[in-house]
Amino acid sequence: MTQKKYHAQIYVTLRPSVLDPAGTAVESGLKNMGYHNVEGVRIGKYIQLTITSATEEAARKQLDIVCDQLLANPVIENYCVELTEIGLLEEATA
Amino acid sequence: MTQKKYHAQIYVTLRPSVLDPAGTAVESGLKNMGYHNVEGVRIGKYIQLTITSATEEAARKQLDIVCDQLLANPVIENYCVELTEIGLLEEATA
Repeated sequence: MTQKKYHAQIYVTLRPSVLDPAGTAVESGLKNMGYHNVEGVRIGKYIQLTITSATEEAARKQLDIVCDQLLANPVIENYCVELTEIGLLEEATA
Repeated sequence: MTQKKYHAQIYVTLRPSVLDPAGTAVESGLKNMGYHNVEGVRIGKYIQLTITSATEEAARKQLDIVCDQLLANPVIENYCVELTEIGLLEEATA
């Protein structure tokens, strides 16, 4: 069966209602450096991986589970998955 | 002088030659969960902020300095900045 390889970009961000102490620290740092024109700094995670799957839908479904269980904390974080097909993977038949 | 507001998305990623222990840990975790079709997990930072500047070029120039000095470690990390104009900010004239 032909499997496809996808490059996945996953953005994990804190929900808007959740405080971001790291973002606040960066913002203070920027102001101390003299940059007063920057605001609303929020720091999230940017995860890249390669997934092999029969269809894009299947890959997305699996990554949703992975995000919910491992990569993000759904109580305080949102996530967004972007998939790009990067090639075919022809499996050898026995 | 009319200033513009930009939404900046900054992606900070480890250089390909640098080991990513957190990414390796996530990959092991995924394999333990039964997902053997995932590989090449790399974990970076995704920073969002709002910057006020006269031109997109000036904003980009400032963010390059900020990334080099505060947000990324240029020895082991790459960064990429995406800017989106989100509105005008008309400054009051005295």
